Amino acid sequence: MKRIGWIGTGVMGRSMCTHILSKGYEVFIFNRSRSKAEYLISEGAIWCSNPREVAEKSDFVFTIVGYPADVEEVILGSDGVLTGAREGSVLVDMTTSEPSLALRIYEESKARSIDALDAPVSGGDVGAREASLAIMVGGERQTFDRVLPLFKCMGNNIAYMGSAGAGQHTKACNQIHIATTMIGVVESLLYAHKAGLDMLEMIAVIGKGAAGSWSINNYGPRIAQGNFEPGFFIKHFVKDMDIALKEARRMNLSLPGLAMAHQFYVSAMAIGLENMGTHSLYKLFEKLNGV
Amino acid sequence: MKRIGWIGTGVMGRSMCTHILSKGYEVFIFNRSRSKAEYLISEGAIWCSNPREVAEKSDFVFTIVGYPADVEEVILGSDGVLTGAREGSVLVDMTTSEPSLALRIYEESKARSIDALDAPVSGGDVGAREASLAIMVGGERQTFDRVLPLFKCMGNNIAYMGSAGAGQHTKACNQIHIATTMIGVVESLLYAHKAGLDMLEMIAVIGKGAAGSWSINNYGPRIAQGNFEPGFFIKHFVKDMDIALKEARRMNLSLPGLAMAHQFYVSAMAIGLENMGTHSLYKLFEKLNGV
Repeated sequence: MKRIGWIGTGVMGRSMCTHILSKGYEVFIFNRSRSKAEYLISEGAIWCSNPREVAEKSDFVFTIVGYPADVEEVILGSDGVLTGAREGSVLVDMTTSEPSLALRIYEESKARSIDALDAPVSGGDVGAREASLAIMVGGERQTFDRVLPLFKCMGNNIAYMGSAGAGQHTKACNQIHIATTMIGVVESLLYAHKAGLDMLEMIAVIGKGAAGSWSINNYGPRIAQGNFEPGFFIKHFVKDMDIALKEARRMNLSLPGLAMAHQFYVSAMAIGLENMGTHSLYKLFEKLNGV
Repeated sequence: MKRIGWIGTGVMGRSMCTHILSKGYEVFIFNRSRSKAEYLISEGAIWCSNPREVAEKSDFVFTIVGYPADVEEVILGSDGVLTGAREGSVLVDMTTSEPSLALRIYEESKARSIDALDAPVSGGDVGAREASLAIMVGGERQTFDRVLPLFKCMGNNIAYMGSAGAGQHTKACNQIHIATTMIGVVESLLYAHKAGLDMLEMIAVIGKGAAGSWSINNYGPRIAQGNFEPGFFIKHFVKDMDIALKEARRMNLSLPGLAMAHQFYVSAMAIGLENMGTHSLYKLFEKLNGV
């Protein structure tokens, strides 16, 4: 049985790694703060002192950390995965990160005869817990085929999208589409409020038809009920939009809707909503309108 | 059996009136250009020379015309419905029009002992043909109950939303949510194109999850295939956004996402896309990006 390395045991990583463990794989783990790894250790995962040690002991290494700078450190840093990974092993970064960084990791891995994939996910904490994530994968097709049985432990919508970086690009598309859709969600709900409509009734009638979206059907009722707890943190969404805008700029691609959404979400950070759910954008729009 | 009046026999009105006729009602019709009414006449509808004559002969009068000015003319004009409608009859405007005009029609009808509803629809030509429209209704509940059997001939998602104008307000919410969502659709697809992704594969993976929307799942593949034929005309969508912005302004409500979408769609009109589908916004974004 293949030995699995896992770096990053936050909300997402912990659930995803649990599924791997439950399939009977031997799992070697590392996390910046060890306390967040205790659960997995109690379930049988073996603690390592740094990413290099994880890589030395594993055939497949998965990483899911915070920001591109964290990805760079755990993979390309002085104690990083590439300092310990063996020839023929596979490295899979599941962080939502930069396509250009994914390409660099792919190339530096290739130079050491290591195969790398970028494989960011969508579906949030619930998708991670229920193993129903969407997984968008870039890299070589044959590497994808090797990792597919492991992806299937974590997700049910697994797509090979093309060469290195294509997974990250696809995740960028995902976030670009959500960004302006969220503006539509909060503006339609605020209009409903001002016009004296019942928000839940409004969502019920428009959400089933041509105006329907996952966002309004899932976040709309929470907004109507004043529940702004995070499904997905604003601070993480802003990071994802930072990446999409940077990549779009690199391609000389103007995305004014994304840029506007990004600015409003930066505003939401500024008024202290960074650890609230993305749908708490509604609270910013209330402020903007004296509601 | 109640006698039905029908004013406005365009793409939507024709299909909707056909369903009423097919249930065996006696139907009196008028349309600005008679040629568009010939089909309904051949199916048994009785032609009238103006809206007044329709109203004189009917227990329920439905209107579905183009712009608020047309609504005003056929209902409140010198040969309009209210000049001919009998006490106790019901007037139902299904045009997407202004909430404030709906309220004025309700009040002027009430003064003549006529009950009025505003009942705009969503679902487009396909929904009209298949009698699967969403119908969003404002006015008195007891009037709604009287008209419900007729609504059920045309739609399958029929919602009473509140007093006069509430139907129009709900339709405005519908269009507000679609407006920015469409920007998300075209920006994510254009990003995919520039990044070298297969658009259909991208839609397949993101459309099923948290980034899913009716718009990307239905219009996305048409954009990918270069099919910009109208499901819904840009010129009509701009009219709907005009109305939503005007009403929002009246409520002192700032909707920057809607305003941006509106401006881009005005741009799309300016470059000759007024009679193309709303998803041809993609072509404007291509131009903006030298694609």
